[in-house]
Amino acid sequence: MAKEREIQDLSPWEDAQKMIAKAGREGVNLIWDRLKDQTPHCTFCEQGLTCSKCVMGPCRINPNGGPKKKYGVCGADGDLTVARNFGRFVAAGAAAHSDHGRDLLETLAAIGDGKTTDYGIRDEAKLERICTELGIEVEGLSVRERAKALADLFFEDYGCRSHNVAFGGRAPQKRKDIWKRFGCTPRGIDRECVEMLHRTHMGVDCDPVSICLHASRTALADGWGGSMIATEVSDIIFGTPKPVKSMVNLGVLKEDQVNILVHGHSPIVSEMILAAAREPEILAKAKEAGATGINIAGLCCTGNELLMRQGVPMAGNHLMTELAIVTGAVEMVIVDYQCIMPSLVNVAGCYHTKFVSTSDKAKFPGGIHMEFHYNNAREKAREAVLMAVEAFTRRDPAKVEIPSKPMSITSGFSNEAILGALGGTPEPLIQALQAGKVRGVVGIVGCNNPKLKHDHVHVNLARELMKRDILVLATGCATVAMGKAGFLEPEAASQAGAGLAEVCRALGIPPVLHVGSCVDNSRILHLCAVLANYAGLDISDLPVAASAPEWYSEKAAAIGLYAVASGVYTHLGLPPHILGSSMITSLALKGLDDVFGACFAVESGPLQAAELIDERIKAKRLALGWSA
Amino acid sequence: MAKEREIQDLSPWEDAQKMIAKAGREGVNLIWDRLKDQTPHCTFCEQGLTCSKCVMGPCRINPNGGPKKKYGVCGADGDLTVARNFGRFVAAGAAAHSDHGRDLLETLAAIGDGKTTDYGIRDEAKLERICTELGIEVEGLSVRERAKALADLFFEDYGCRSHNVAFGGRAPQKRKDIWKRFGCTPRGIDRECVEMLHRTHMGVDCDPVSICLHASRTALADGWGGSMIATEVSDIIFGTPKPVKSMVNLGVLKEDQVNILVHGHSPIVSEMILAAAREPEILAKAKEAGATGINIAGLCCTGNELLMRQGVPMAGNHLMTELAIVTGAVEMVIVDYQCIMPSLVNVAGCYHTKFVSTSDKAKFPGGIHMEFHYNNAREKAREAVLMAVEAFTRRDPAKVEIPSKPMSITSGFSNEAILGALGGTPEPLIQALQAGKVRGVVGIVGCNNPKLKHDHVHVNLARELMKRDILVLATGCATVAMGKAGFLEPEAASQAGAGLAEVCRALGIPPVLHVGSCVDNSRILHLCAVLANYAGLDISDLPVAASAPEWYSEKAAAIGLYAVASGVYTHLGLPPHILGSSMITSLALKGLDDVFGACFAVESGPLQAAELIDERIKAKRLALGWSA
Repeated sequence: MAKEREIQDLSPWEDAQKMIAKAGREGVNLIWDRLKDQTPHCTFCEQGLTCSKCVMGPCRINPNGGPKKKYGVCGADGDLTVARNFGRFVAAGAAAHSDHGRDLLETLAAIGDGKTTDYGIRDEAKLERICTELGIEVEGLSVRERAKALADLFFEDYGCRSHNVAFGGRAPQKRKDIWKRFGCTPRGIDRECVEMLHRTHMGVDCDPVSICLHASRTALADGWGGSMIATEVSDIIFGTPKPVKSMVNLGVLKEDQVNILVHGHSPIVSEMILAAAREPEILAKAKEAGATGINIAGLCCTGNELLMRQGVPMAGNHLMTELAIVTGAVEMVIVDYQCIMPSLVNVAGCYHTKFVSTSDKAKFPGGIHMEFHYNNAREKAREAVLMAVEAFTRRDPAKVEIPSKPMSITSGFSNEAILGALGGTPEPLIQALQAGKVRGVVGIVGCNNPKLKHDHVHVNLARELMKRDILVLATGCATVAMGKAGFLEPEAASQAGAGLAEVCRALGIPPVLHVGSCVDNSRILHLCAVLANYAGLDISDLPVAASAPEWYSEKAAAIGLYAVASGVYTHLGLPPHILGSSMITSLALKGLDDVFGACFAVESGPLQAAELIDERIKAKRLALGWSA
Repeated sequence: MAKEREIQDLSPWEDAQKMIAKAGREGVNLIWDRLKDQTPHCTFCEQGLTCSKCVMGPCRINPNGGPKKKYGVCGADGDLTVARNFGRFVAAGAAAHSDHGRDLLETLAAIGDGKTTDYGIRDEAKLERICTELGIEVEGLSVRERAKALADLFFEDYGCRSHNVAFGGRAPQKRKDIWKRFGCTPRGIDRECVEMLHRTHMGVDCDPVSICLHASRTALADGWGGSMIATEVSDIIFGTPKPVKSMVNLGVLKEDQVNILVHGHSPIVSEMILAAAREPEILAKAKEAGATGINIAGLCCTGNELLMRQGVPMAGNHLMTELAIVTGAVEMVIVDYQCIMPSLVNVAGCYHTKFVSTSDKAKFPGGIHMEFHYNNAREKAREAVLMAVEAFTRRDPAKVEIPSKPMSITSGFSNEAILGALGGTPEPLIQALQAGKVRGVVGIVGCNNPKLKHDHVHVNLARELMKRDILVLATGCATVAMGKAGFLEPEAASQAGAGLAEVCRALGIPPVLHVGSCVDNSRILHLCAVLANYAGLDISDLPVAASAPEWYSEKAAAIGLYAVASGVYTHLGLPPHILGSSMITSLALKGLDDVFGACFAVESGPLQAAELIDERIKAKRLALGWSA
């Protein structure tokens, strides 16, 4: 059990601190306990120098010789071993996003085929716009026929017959030329992932640089392929976000209501849960059970999806997922997939909380599995919500502690909303950038990592960037950090530099804009492309950067790499498992600049990171002939 | 440098022993040296208990507690960690085969589209047969149009819109029902690999059994998808194998000729090299350089491809690839991909040997890269062969030692050839099985592994099975072992039991039939399906088994799992990295029997393995009411 002083070192937030203390009192094992048990980590694994990719090994490479040798059994050296591991790491991240996108796509196809009544098209205008953008002749086609035609087109992106994924066309020509020159144009979404697995099999690609370039291609297939399809199709089906008010932190849980937390990444299940929870018959059941209502709140990215489109409050981000249950006030955690710690089933087991999984590809032993499909989702959602209502009757009031008052936030800044606020054209933003009122734009994205003080880098980096007139776009778990810090409200303009504050006040927007979930980093890519195309530039010419200050996942690595390969300088708060190869490390930190006009920076200190990002933005501004 | 006694423990073959000794004298680092350096292996990795799939870790799990803890940072226990690792291991193997199949498919499409003159259709009858089998109306279509239509159909298998891969239709209905019941019907080839990456991302599938079932589905997408497409399309383009005489071991190298070794897996490059080497102008150049000719010989599976179709001799299998270069008589090793040890570049560097890579997805630092495409392959092949001719002039006779006399072999036993020998119907084989003349059929497949004495398990297992009237089908690296032991000639019937000997003599075939490369294990699957369908049985009812006695690769794990999931009991000479989970281990060795009617057995002793296989065959025979 962590002591008070130690708890303050783990998280700066009151809600987290109180729940860590409560978990300690109640004997609940938390992520920080497990990290402590796993520390120190294996230095070979940490450096990317282990290989278990065949049974001639496993091998551990010591690039500097010594008792453990320089080569694996097959002859792979440290550089190759690190590259193989990193390649698979990125491919797994790309695969996760893209398989999520596939689920949206299959739902779109089911709508098109008339196979579902649970889902429909909420944004017909966006459907038409995307169809037209991608060359589908919409004239004379019904909404369903358009959905079907668009689904057909996107299915091609998942196959292996195209020469570029459809949305790759959005990138500036100069960027596409770079991809072509280095063999990085993403062909098929699945294909690049599979080819990465192939390349990293023993005795295939033995060139670390070649593997890294293919990792970039794989990541681009995610960013401009799987993730972008996930985002755009989600908007078409569930509505394109527009500014909306909501709340954040564990204070969004309600003592007198049935609390259901949706966790995972896709809107497919969470939207149905929300809809079911709003049905009068089901609300009546909740009242019969003694609750004043049913409170849906979000965790992680499915939370972001509901927040962006429906204003559903966010209970917390990655490091809050266990702690949310520790409140003792959660009747149900219902999940789809990704970033759902296996430990949650055990934590739920310490309380009356039902843990429900919904996807055939993400089951949890000890949890309840209710499989959702496009043709039973609403019905399953009702069943799940009623199960939560029943669980409410077994809540133990003695175990309930809901800490903190919720912070209010504004969300919903899709590109459509941002461009809408600008009068439908990027011109005002370009002008503000040129004039130096907004000196740059930085996406702060990604996860939490228990190795870093919770949300500390997120918040302090954002604070520092705002001061320097740099507009921040937030997605994923960073969002909750920004919200808790108060940055997601227009009033936070007072903390921004004079130029940014002026722009924010003129538009009535916060200096940190919540633009979505982690697949929605594709919105940032797209916005960069829109700006670059409008200004006749490449993305790498723009004064923009990305940062994943507290990232932990393979998905985040894919995001970071597609950002860099798209020309966006990217800061990471801690390194991937590549430090065992000075070649790969130097490629990441420097060499990629010669390829993509962007590279990575690794820095765990928020002020130092802000300095690095600012320097890069300055350099880009000067190169454009703008003021530093 | 290994001592004589030690060398005898590494390999039973004269050619290998002599070259190991020569390498020692010449200071060449070999795979056994590196294995020694890497021993002992990390026990966590060896048991599948390490995880580097996010940067909250890396983690090492100790399922039994102790100083390293029971859970990873995310909460994953040992079972989940092992399952995640095994899932990715299988997916990488499936990806490798399937991406190889994709290359053949793209070549077929290029032929169909008239985009290549280097490649064509050598087996028009098979093209027509496969088209018809898969429901393509061939009437009125030209050969090119048929090729195009078939390519279109197979591309769908690589996409994600199908409900079963096309060749999945070949499986018996009972088998398909089992796949359906357990959610294992392979949908798309790439899709299953990508979904496996997704499932094994942190916080997705946390159910070890669910992951293992998806591993099976992924493997099935390889066996009945990617691999089967690779085999059948290779036959269509390069000809369906029929019995052919050839030779095996390092003695196939010729002191007075330009020796070119083709290494890797696809016939796409090696067929072109062979064709170029047979061109009179190029032969003339070789003669000018003082050689009496150009000798193409094979290593590993691209060797098997050329052996099966063209009777090209085989220099060696996996553990012979370094040793072949040590002869000092090899002008060029030209490779495509898979199982090409990165060490080969270094070994080649110790001699005058040119190391040439040909695929954009498999580059080798220090080697020469000549990229082959369907529209430049013949030209590139000429260039490569001429480079080898040039290298011949720089061969150092003092360094040349070609050991051993080659063994003669018969190869080319495609299913078409086997069924042809049986009069076009499986009836005689079914009768022989029923009568107990042939008590069973066992595929001995897969690699070498330096942890096991070279070819020892291959040869002794085959010898023991033959004696017991069990017909052996060999593919991959097992082939060379069988050839060196003399089992691939009809005369070896004298070593078989009376029943099998009688059948072999009647048909003029060896008791061990070479049926192809490692993707050609799909031929064995298909043959099993043909037998089962003919007899109205499921594959798991047949007295058949598989064995990968000396496997090392992820591909072999995928093969093993698709064999089991297809109902074929499968012996492995050593375990995958799963022993850290008693749950997964027991699932593999027992539990899968309840799912698929087949499971794995792990046994490094050839006689004990023969006993296990024989017992299983006995049980199957008795269940069918046949004599034991």
